[in-house]
Amino acid sequence: LKITVPIALRWSDFDAYGHVNNAEMLRILEEARMEVFWRPDAGVEALPTALLEAGPGVAIQSLISSQSIEYLVPIPYTRRPIDVELWIGRLGGAHLEVSYEVYSPRGVSPRLLHTRASTTLVLVHSATGRPTRIPPAVRESWQSIVEEPVRFTRR
Amino acid sequence: LKITVPIALRWSDFDAYGHVNNAEMLRILEEARMEVFWRPDAGVEALPTALLEAGPGVAIQSLISSQSIEYLVPIPYTRRPIDVELWIGRLGGAHLEVSYEVYSPRGVSPRLLHTRASTTLVLVHSATGRPTRIPPAVRESWQSIVEEPVRFTRR
Amino acid sequence: LKITVPIALRWSDFDAYGHVNNAEMLRILEEARMEVFWRPDAGVEALPTALLEAGPGVAIQSLISSQSIEYLVPIPYTRRPIDVELWIGRLGGAHLEVSYEVYSPRGVSPRLLHTRASTTLVLVHSATGRPTRIPPAVRESWQSIVEEPVRFTRR
Amino acid sequence: LKITVPIALRWSDFDAYGHVNNAEMLRILEEARMEVFWRPDAGVEALPTALLEAGPGVAIQSLISSQSIEYLVPIPYTRRPIDVELWIGRLGGAHLEVSYEVYSPRGVSPRLLHTRASTTLVLVHSATGRPTRIPPAVRESWQSIVEEPVRFTRR
Repeated sequence: LKITVPIALRWSDFDAYGHVNNAEMLRILEEARMEVFWRPDAGVEALPTALLEAGPGVAIQSLISSQSIEYLVPIPYTRRPIDVELWIGRLGGAHLEVSYEVYSPRGVSPRLLHTRASTTLVLVHSATGRPTRIPPAVRESWQSIVEEPVRFTRR
Repeated sequence: LKITVPIALRWSDFDAYGHVNNAEMLRILEEARMEVFWRPDAGVEALPTALLEAGPGVAIQSLISSQSIEYLVPIPYTRRPIDVELWIGRLGGAHLEVSYEVYSPRGVSPRLLHTRASTTLVLVHSATGRPTRIPPAVRESWQSIVEEPVRFTRR
Repeated sequence: LKITVPIALRWSDFDAYGHVNNAEMLRILEEARMEVFWRPDAGVEALPTALLEAGPGVAIQSLISSQSIEYLVPIPYTRRPIDVELWIGRLGGAHLEVSYEVYSPRGVSPRLLHTRASTTLVLVHSATGRPTRIPPAVRESWQSIVEEPVRFTRR
Repeated sequence: LKITVPIALRWSDFDAYGHVNNAEMLRILEEARMEVFWRPDAGVEALPTALLEAGPGVAIQSLISSQSIEYLVPIPYTRRPIDVELWIGRLGGAHLEVSYEVYSPRGVSPRLLHTRASTTLVLVHSATGRPTRIPPAVRESWQSIVEEPVRFTRR
């Protein structure tokens, strides 16, 4: 199963060339990740995979250990949310590799694939900074969105 | 008439103190302004006041000439969009003064007033950079959202 | 006494119109403020006014209660640091009002005044969030950079 | 030859965990790249490799086609500029692969390797968006900073 998360762009995401800034793209992927993996405020409807606690003071944190991103087609200015497809490419003991494909906003045709990316996250104890195993209930839920890792063209 | 525009926060809006960064708040107001005053992509539903063209290459641009902002209560991390109330406090020949009040996300109680702000914009010809009168049809539409300018407590 | 702080711009400060983004300007002022008021790492030379502790876990924090900014002339792309003149316009019991004027990089002629701004900060106990008086030694040092508050043209 | 470019951090680079935000790191690398490859304003001293023209309206643009980044040790808040070592890992006909290693600020001991990264850029005609060969004089200059591409641990 791949999850499609629509993410609203901001005017400030666009640089002096009128493209989404290369760094800002990582913030857009970060938002998609928050939606899929982090528990929202009480009372907000959430995906079943949204099981991590966010914010300062939590017992288990996630650290990003690496990211790769391939910019295929620049994203022009649009007010519609773009479609981020997100899934887990690899599910390890304490880490997971998240895969993404970023597509044109829903309803725009042709539907272009703008960006491919992947992020490796490791869960750590906030107190010690040491890796901690993904809890069994979390792992079981996340298993449902494991698919083949995104394949990059250019490396 | 005041318009309420829900704006999604991003994880990266929050600084090392867990508050929405003071500068990032201006980007949030910018998004609310885009929604109210700028024409969206073809096929996207728009407010009747959304009459300006955005993006590079347009004939008429808006420049920000000044902004004031009052931070009343820090905004805690939330996944719900916050409520930006936006209206025109003054409508001049070539410029307009936009007023804002930023409130807790819908459904959160008590509903707190986090921020008050105002932005003065001037319309200019892109080619010459000189001020240009707000076109009559635009002025007429914008007249509907003119209210008393936001009043700051602390100045 | 007014202090001149050169601040390096970043390519990402510039928006789709080739101007420093209006919100990013507040980040540039924030950097100038850090330089003047916050103690740097051990071993880094500091201004005598740089007496506050930064970072999470400090006993006394500063909160921004309001900001005003006037954009006079857009800043074109430049690799030279721009000159931020910074002083204290008002020094209260627990708060201070910082004034700024942002000028062309040193050596550029004519030297343009791009931006005027002011920020009101209040010192608070991190634990309680309540205002706390500026410590006498800090006040004495800061007294040396008190000048007439910046005067805005357009309000 | 590897070039060391000191890059000033900003307070706003740090997220709610007190670390340099993962996306902001790409902006820091972007600044190092500007310094090494883009011609500065007239009168500013430049590296001999700084031969591309920046800004809107240029004939040849560079597009980022991919990036990889490995976050080894989080960067704590510091007011000293961090040291970005930058070199060319591969120099193709129309593209180049830039390698980076990000180290503790000069003078901090122990000197830690915080981040490894690489960016693939392609030169294109601004008018057509099509790849264009790196001009011979530029290639010759860039040849001096070609070294073995950065090697990632974790992929």
